[in-house]
Amino acid sequence: MPVIDFRLRPPLAGFLKMALFVENERRDWTTRVHGFEPAPSAREKSMPLLLAEMDRAGVSVGVVIGRNSGRYGSISNEDVADIVKTYPGRFVGAASIDPTNRKAACEQIRNAAKAGFRAINIEPGSYPLPMMSDDRRLYPIYAQCEDVGLPVIIMAGGSAGPDLSYTDPVHLDRIAADFPALKIVVSHGGWPWVHQILHIAFRRQNIYLSPDQYLANLCGMDDYIRAADGFLTDRFLYASSYPFTPVDGYAAWFRSLPIRPEAMEKIMFRNAASLLRLDVNST
Amino acid sequence: MPVIDFRLRPPLAGFLKMALFVENERRDWTTRVHGFEPAPSAREKSMPLLLAEMDRAGVSVGVVIGRNSGRYGSISNEDVADIVKTYPGRFVGAASIDPTNRKAACEQIRNAAKAGFRAINIEPGSYPLPMMSDDRRLYPIYAQCEDVGLPVIIMAGGSAGPDLSYTDPVHLDRIAADFPALKIVVSHGGWPWVHQILHIAFRRQNIYLSPDQYLANLCGMDDYIRAADGFLTDRFLYASSYPFTPVDGYAAWFRSLPIRPEAMEKIMFRNAASLLRLDVNST
Amino acid sequence: MPVIDFRLRPPLAGFLKMALFVENERRDWTTRVHGFEPAPSAREKSMPLLLAEMDRAGVSVGVVIGRNSGRYGSISNEDVADIVKTYPGRFVGAASIDPTNRKAACEQIRNAAKAGFRAINIEPGSYPLPMMSDDRRLYPIYAQCEDVGLPVIIMAGGSAGPDLSYTDPVHLDRIAADFPALKIVVSHGGWPWVHQILHIAFRRQNIYLSPDQYLANLCGMDDYIRAADGFLTDRFLYASSYPFTPVDGYAAWFRSLPIRPEAMEKIMFRNAASLLRLDVNST
Repeated sequence: MPVIDFRLRPPLAGFLKMALFVENERRDWTTRVHGFEPAPSAREKSMPLLLAEMDRAGVSVGVVIGRNSGRYGSISNEDVADIVKTYPGRFVGAASIDPTNRKAACEQIRNAAKAGFRAINIEPGSYPLPMMSDDRRLYPIYAQCEDVGLPVIIMAGGSAGPDLSYTDPVHLDRIAADFPALKIVVSHGGWPWVHQILHIAFRRQNIYLSPDQYLANLCGMDDYIRAADGFLTDRFLYASSYPFTPVDGYAAWFRSLPIRPEAMEKIMFRNAASLLRLDVNST
Repeated sequence: MPVIDFRLRPPLAGFLKMALFVENERRDWTTRVHGFEPAPSAREKSMPLLLAEMDRAGVSVGVVIGRNSGRYGSISNEDVADIVKTYPGRFVGAASIDPTNRKAACEQIRNAAKAGFRAINIEPGSYPLPMMSDDRRLYPIYAQCEDVGLPVIIMAGGSAGPDLSYTDPVHLDRIAADFPALKIVVSHGGWPWVHQILHIAFRRQNIYLSPDQYLANLCGMDDYIRAADGFLTDRFLYASSYPFTPVDGYAAWFRSLPIRPEAMEKIMFRNAASLLRLDVNST
Repeated sequence: MPVIDFRLRPPLAGFLKMALFVENERRDWTTRVHGFEPAPSAREKSMPLLLAEMDRAGVSVGVVIGRNSGRYGSISNEDVADIVKTYPGRFVGAASIDPTNRKAACEQIRNAAKAGFRAINIEPGSYPLPMMSDDRRLYPIYAQCEDVGLPVIIMAGGSAGPDLSYTDPVHLDRIAADFPALKIVVSHGGWPWVHQILHIAFRRQNIYLSPDQYLANLCGMDDYIRAADGFLTDRFLYASSYPFTPVDGYAAWFRSLPIRPEAMEKIMFRNAASLLRLDVNST
């Protein structure tokens, strides 16, 4: 079974200037809280090491997520496209947009669709001017995504915003209701609002959860896993959130979770392949 | 031990036009998420089958809840009274009210008390014009319930409202504090706000919890059960939420939960009998 | 190993007039919900019994918290200072302030620092005029605490406020972000917002948790304990919340929790000693 890692930032281009590859001490502390040792590739910012770790983990494809952030740093869609092109078959890209300019953002989305991006990444709480994910300024943007048929990835969990209110799942609940044909991937899985986001995923069939690093060794973990093995099997997505966890250590740990083999295959591969319309041979 | 099922909608009258007996596929999906197979009576909309299932489950009495809803459909108090009369001893009624007309609602409450209804049902988030449960327009209505001595059932959990904010337990917290002599049954148990609603039940002695279908196979289940076996033993109410779960399958499952026999008897019978002032013979 | 009990109200002075020593039935009910029998010293309001219970529990030092409250009653800083002086080495004091008078409050803080108080206690939701913990009127007060180098204890959990919104951890999240050099002890541990407060403690390194009585036998208990044994080891504080639980019964129970011995020592002693700058001999 091939594996798609839905959140993986390689040590390249704009990623190297982001907090995740600059604030090393903080990142390594986080990695250890999640129960892992920092990846050699993360510490050495080495692509050959990362590719070897991906191979060891059986990770065929990583989703590289463009970012337009204040606090966390940015990477352009051009850089993401370059990464995808430089390592053929190993990465697919999600494009970011500028939320302060509706028309430009809609054009970015149309261009992204044409250029082969498979999703649009929205990080409302982390924009230079933070906003809630159901901010009215984002609604034309969600509408455009729905129209071009691309799923959105919304970072709504962890420290995504100036304070806890930015990750309150009520915002996602409204978007999911208002755009029923839009597929929404909740990256960081809405953590720490575990009970609430599981309710919303139960209620709204267009919500996909990817708790990624926040699944590991934190409160709520058992609830996520039970949902992954139960009603969410078709809408749960595997992601390491590398470099916050090691690609291979995370995969080994994830495979040990109490999830049925057929659910595991959906979570680690089929759900993402279908959502991103990938042709990866499934064996 | 007789059993009172605090939320049971028979396939009769207005119920037949509600989403719960019309959107069959969605209902059956929900039933399976809760870990059950759909009841034959639900699929065939058959009263003889339902009565047989109730008998098999040892369910003496079902609480039939009147409803005045937009999305979910309505059933009049007259129809509920008819059901109670047609199946003597098998059902008791909770009356619904029109929240948009304070005077008429208060009259409905007084009439319901005279007509033998045992509770008033309020579904704030599901009214044609949704409101929060602590909406000021509902306050004269709660006051009237307190005055006539009828408990209120407030649907505050699950998908009760346009979005997650409608089930935020803070609204119930305020009602419980402002009407200390009013007994409040939280149907759907405040799910998914499991920790928060348990706090409120801990703090407010006039709060009764009935997680009903949301107890089964969802996150927070263990917390509900520990409370049912602990500080909430006298204020926890058994309910299948039929047709969302099968009356008999749910009862068999519930009896297998780790709850002391004396607590089980309170939860499945005595608490409801006392709250509804029923004379059902207890053995 | 000596033990510091971070929340302990002896039956003396203003404490005797507080709800906790007056509403005996309610207190004893609470004690039993937490799984304990009421302490003889609490029922008899006896200092000799309390000191004997502390000795039996190995509790060297109790933190006596000044209080300026409406519903719960008050005790002056002078009375707290007297208690500390009367029982040398057994108690340290936290001073309360008057939140309605910024200048007087700042003077109280400076005086408290000079008089040997080790912390400032803020109970926003329980003030005669309740406020949120991030109320702007409290900001000059937090600033003064940060300036004099005293930690603040913020009561933000349990029934701390007129309703559930007062304990919403978002308020603490903002304070922790806005005063990064201020050490904040969350008494009552943010319960019932267990997932949310653990996220904030994960995100903000200046947050200390002391779930005290709300740790015992309530929902979320396992999540608190896992954090105490994990990423929160250096910022988790032991407290019985006496008289709501017995000093010795709580200590015996706490020692039985699945927490590594070295983490246990930090939680029951070293973290508090360091935060309060105590010279208690550590063995």
